[in-house]
Amino acid sequence: MTEPLLHPDRLFPAEPSVRAIARNLYETIAELPIVSPHGHTDPQWFAENGAFADAASLFLIPDHYVLRMLRSQNIAYDALAVPRKDGAPVADARSAWRTFCTNWPLFAGTPSELWINHSLSREFGIDAPLSAQTADATFDLIGARLADADLRPLAILDRANVEMIATTEFALDPLNHHATIKAKGLGARIRTTYRPDDVTDPEAADFAANLETLAEITGEDVSTWSGMIKAHATRRAHFRAHGATATDHGVPTALTADLGPAERQALLDGALKGVLSAAEAEQFRAQMLTEMAGLSAEDGMVMQIHAGSRRATDPMLQAERGRNLGDDIPQRTDFVGGLSALLSRYGNAENFRLIAFTLDESTYARELAPMAGYWPALMVGPPWWFHDSSNGIRRYLDAMHETAGFANMAGFNDDTRALLSIAARHDVWRREVAGFLAKMVAEHKIGQATARDRARWLSYDAAKAAYRIP
Amino acid sequence: MTEPLLHPDRLFPAEPSVRAIARNLYETIAELPIVSPHGHTDPQWFAENGAFADAASLFLIPDHYVLRMLRSQNIAYDALAVPRKDGAPVADARSAWRTFCTNWPLFAGTPSELWINHSLSREFGIDAPLSAQTADATFDLIGARLADADLRPLAILDRANVEMIATTEFALDPLNHHATIKAKGLGARIRTTYRPDDVTDPEAADFAANLETLAEITGEDVSTWSGMIKAHATRRAHFRAHGATATDHGVPTALTADLGPAERQALLDGALKGVLSAAEAEQFRAQMLTEMAGLSAEDGMVMQIHAGSRRATDPMLQAERGRNLGDDIPQRTDFVGGLSALLSRYGNAENFRLIAFTLDESTYARELAPMAGYWPALMVGPPWWFHDSSNGIRRYLDAMHETAGFANMAGFNDDTRALLSIAARHDVWRREVAGFLAKMVAEHKIGQATARDRARWLSYDAAKAAYRIP
Amino acid sequence: MTEPLLHPDRLFPAEPSVRAIARNLYETIAELPIVSPHGHTDPQWFAENGAFADAASLFLIPDHYVLRMLRSQNIAYDALAVPRKDGAPVADARSAWRTFCTNWPLFAGTPSELWINHSLSREFGIDAPLSAQTADATFDLIGARLADADLRPLAILDRANVEMIATTEFALDPLNHHATIKAKGLGARIRTTYRPDDVTDPEAADFAANLETLAEITGEDVSTWSGMIKAHATRRAHFRAHGATATDHGVPTALTADLGPAERQALLDGALKGVLSAAEAEQFRAQMLTEMAGLSAEDGMVMQIHAGSRRATDPMLQAERGRNLGDDIPQRTDFVGGLSALLSRYGNAENFRLIAFTLDESTYARELAPMAGYWPALMVGPPWWFHDSSNGIRRYLDAMHETAGFANMAGFNDDTRALLSIAARHDVWRREVAGFLAKMVAEHKIGQATARDRARWLSYDAAKAAYRIP
Repeated sequence: MTEPLLHPDRLFPAEPSVRAIARNLYETIAELPIVSPHGHTDPQWFAENGAFADAASLFLIPDHYVLRMLRSQNIAYDALAVPRKDGAPVADARSAWRTFCTNWPLFAGTPSELWINHSLSREFGIDAPLSAQTADATFDLIGARLADADLRPLAILDRANVEMIATTEFALDPLNHHATIKAKGLGARIRTTYRPDDVTDPEAADFAANLETLAEITGEDVSTWSGMIKAHATRRAHFRAHGATATDHGVPTALTADLGPAERQALLDGALKGVLSAAEAEQFRAQMLTEMAGLSAEDGMVMQIHAGSRRATDPMLQAERGRNLGDDIPQRTDFVGGLSALLSRYGNAENFRLIAFTLDESTYARELAPMAGYWPALMVGPPWWFHDSSNGIRRYLDAMHETAGFANMAGFNDDTRALLSIAARHDVWRREVAGFLAKMVAEHKIGQATARDRARWLSYDAAKAAYRIP
Repeated sequence: MTEPLLHPDRLFPAEPSVRAIARNLYETIAELPIVSPHGHTDPQWFAENGAFADAASLFLIPDHYVLRMLRSQNIAYDALAVPRKDGAPVADARSAWRTFCTNWPLFAGTPSELWINHSLSREFGIDAPLSAQTADATFDLIGARLADADLRPLAILDRANVEMIATTEFALDPLNHHATIKAKGLGARIRTTYRPDDVTDPEAADFAANLETLAEITGEDVSTWSGMIKAHATRRAHFRAHGATATDHGVPTALTADLGPAERQALLDGALKGVLSAAEAEQFRAQMLTEMAGLSAEDGMVMQIHAGSRRATDPMLQAERGRNLGDDIPQRTDFVGGLSALLSRYGNAENFRLIAFTLDESTYARELAPMAGYWPALMVGPPWWFHDSSNGIRRYLDAMHETAGFANMAGFNDDTRALLSIAARHDVWRREVAGFLAKMVAEHKIGQATARDRARWLSYDAAKAAYRIP
Repeated sequence: MTEPLLHPDRLFPAEPSVRAIARNLYETIAELPIVSPHGHTDPQWFAENGAFADAASLFLIPDHYVLRMLRSQNIAYDALAVPRKDGAPVADARSAWRTFCTNWPLFAGTPSELWINHSLSREFGIDAPLSAQTADATFDLIGARLADADLRPLAILDRANVEMIATTEFALDPLNHHATIKAKGLGARIRTTYRPDDVTDPEAADFAANLETLAEITGEDVSTWSGMIKAHATRRAHFRAHGATATDHGVPTALTADLGPAERQALLDGALKGVLSAAEAEQFRAQMLTEMAGLSAEDGMVMQIHAGSRRATDPMLQAERGRNLGDDIPQRTDFVGGLSALLSRYGNAENFRLIAFTLDESTYARELAPMAGYWPALMVGPPWWFHDSSNGIRRYLDAMHETAGFANMAGFNDDTRALLSIAARHDVWRREVAGFLAKMVAEHKIGQATARDRARWLSYDAAKAAYRIP
């Protein structure tokens, strides 16, 4: 007996009475529109609505979840067609796809398997696991289908019932694609997000040059702290004009600071000269988080903090190919101490909203749930990155809900770079939510009506409310 | 179909065979007397046995679990009738109760919901969820019932079958209420606990003045270290005369120290002058924990350490209203390093008992279970504060029992400020214990007889043994 | 109705459909040969194949899991026949056994109970729980059976179907027993492991003298850093000649370093003089881990790091009896920061393999799974020590598998000092693996064929592959 790639009861609890409740709950949310307020899809896709190139470019080369697992088993990135900085040749797409298919069993039980199977089955009618035997056939089949109009980016959004999606752009991004999107009348559906790490992290590549560019773009004097903050305010307004309702900040730690004017200026001076120590650079980022909170309290943009990833841990990979290819690893994170300065200043500010994301699950019940259950400004983001998986979602809901309550959760966002995985990821979340709430119903912790209400909140309403999507 | 507020099978595992075992186990412990060796009820209640004022004063205003959740959803403490330091008016009780009832759905799935529903149903015969519609009616109904003799504090203890309860008083408390209680012949049933944070924490408000008062009360010279310790010994004896079998110590970290005489005296000198740095204040507290252990080894009082809460994190709340209103947040805690000095000195002392409580669940399996499974002096307290919930108890039992064994667990204590929640909290614990042991039986890890024995231990015997209640 | 000591369905999930799948999966792996690539059995047993002395010497005195639990309940090590440094008399074996049996209920639900019951039932036909009543009878029965030929060490290996077992010896061990084992033609079955903590940790007892001995044995000049490393290379070759395929390193933290020549030499000079500070000693160990990785990359020995145990925490125990008697306690561990230097240097080295073990479960999903899912060199070891239990294994598989994938797990090793527990421990692992995979099948996460394949991998193939056992 072969399992279908997508069993209708997948992820639901095995106990029959709980499964029945889960199935019923899931039915009430399965077809809700998708709200995707945070992610990393490419706005060019939506601006140009061109066809994707081939199976490898779609499923393999841009997906660091997939690449890393193959690499961990001694499959070189050259063989996976991951471009090199030195331009030396790498495998062609078909060959990379073969390597991927041959090693598909590595992904058994991983979220990647779930997500990719979802797309293969739904979008391409493939209903057998990838394998060396079917590699060429699936490469051809996918390649052929990609030319079809209904596999263009906007059609994919339509079929996935995406009501709204946000991309993420750095502060200096010209937002050309979003301008095109807006001109097409899609501005309310496809929004940008202000992610100024390139000009808030003194350890970012070309930081001083970036700040200079920010000065040129905004007409502000970024050599003074207040001028720099004004430049951000201006730039944020520009992002809002392109649909942004939120900002995002990727930081290695959750440290925030609330320094005096002289200290701030000294940090900026040192940053511009490139002479900050690691500890000073950390103070700079810490102060910038608090400044961004202050701007959010003024302009109403929802602030996201994604804290706790140690980026680019493999010098060899960085030298050969660069960032976002699998060598970012979570580290222990201190939210209660880290966010103290920011929350002491803005945690009760009327217009301020902060959504915190963690890669350190030990902070769920210990720090984030208690903090979100107190501070009006704070909500907890959904499980992030490595934890955006079936069991990861279970651990998240288990550890969060009793202290944070469902109302302080920001719903789900897919955080993906892979367009086709959006529907798959939201489906995993909705199934897990249904399973989790079903167990609560079966244990008489909540009633059926409450479960249906919370299922809808977690699947749809929360994301819109949290991100202030009109 | 509406769920009753209190389903007879609530919290039991859903799988029918496990549920059946859980139900049977629960029946053997459900009616055991309650031993409540640690908590924060007000001794004045028992000394005077007066009527509670109204629904809001009973369920809302003193309950920081409830207040914080409402606040996190932008409901101001003014609207919840939480008193202000400046005496400015806040909502009246009925209006606050309305606000609470209107927002009751926020508590779905939280322990507060379980606890409050338990009281509403058992004590007031209310069997529909609180809501805006029923706010006035329930306010009136509860208010009317509160005048009845059977809702006086002592009657509540009787009906909950409370065999023994301990309150917690600071070192300088005159213990008037406990003297009254003792005079009424209730001294063995209602005991105090020695909580000297006001004179062991140099960062406590009015620390130097407090120490001076301690000197006056005890006739000791607290300007020398040994005099100060003698003052504690005297004061502990006074507390024992009012029923205390235990001490309690609330500390931000678990750090202990074992310093030489000169270092100790220098810390005391600095503390009295108010010139200790934060690190020195930490050393002072660390040394005091070890001193308290030494006194416990002499006088046999059971020592409790509640470590890891970062108190009073919201400056605005502190300025407006003060402490214990929801802004205390757990932080990472190091027990193995922290308790090293204390345990090296007293961990094998014959008469010494230490019960450790944590808010950092990652220490359950990593530190506390191994330590309690080695040191004769050490037991682990039940899940504390945010973790005293259905899933919190599951995580605790799961992570603790294999390494600590049930014998090194101190049973349950409710730690509550809410008199009516005592029965509810012990009931949640007993249900979860029954469910947990039932699963072990179903997986053939333990037999039925062992399960019954351990269920009784965890529900009743352990608390008496751990706290040396005669 | 009494439970048998070993219920055929023990540890399997209770839900009937999942249990049925688990049972079927377990049947496919239950009888696979045991590969035990890491442990602490005594090679003398296998070299001499003598009879064990008595029940207490077999089950009690060498088992720190058991000793510690008894001690935690105020049962003195004297009464348990644990030898003293001062040679003062301790209880005799029969009396110690009686104490142990009398207190057997303490172990309800612990892994020790499972392991010991397994041996009692399988090897001695005992099918009632130990108790005061049966203490003498079981002591006699076990003592009598131990004289039988089929309870000699090699017969025990045969009956447990142990295909291969590795012991662990310090760098200066003469390997006499392994020479005998080799001469008997058992060299491929019973191997040693190179554990050089005695010459890599400047805080080890007699460190300088140990290094001198290493110099004598290897003929290298250990007063220079490069000479010392050469001495290791020589010694590793000697261990390989006695079957070693792996090295092992027990360290309090996971810190590694990659220092320049002058710094390294300064550390060595200080270590030989015994003048290193605690921080410098930590640097020495950190550098040595990286050096060992370099040697592994050259000679192909698999490197194991067991990080995060704070050893010998009880000064009284150390003074009276010494190490490995229950006072080692886990501490928080930082793998992402700690292993950074080592992995930056050797994480992509072709021939290098590192297996990391942790006692800090919060690192499973946060650090080790992501790291193993990226670095070709890194695999994660099975749950270690306190976590090598039914629930510990569940938490491990739950937190690891989605990000690390099964392919980056090194299978199971029993890590035991107790010969009879080997079969018991592998059986627990296999049952838990079957239960875990069965749940995945029931939730349609993986198919039956994949589950069978992964069950075999985790129970047998992985250990051979990970440790490069021919």
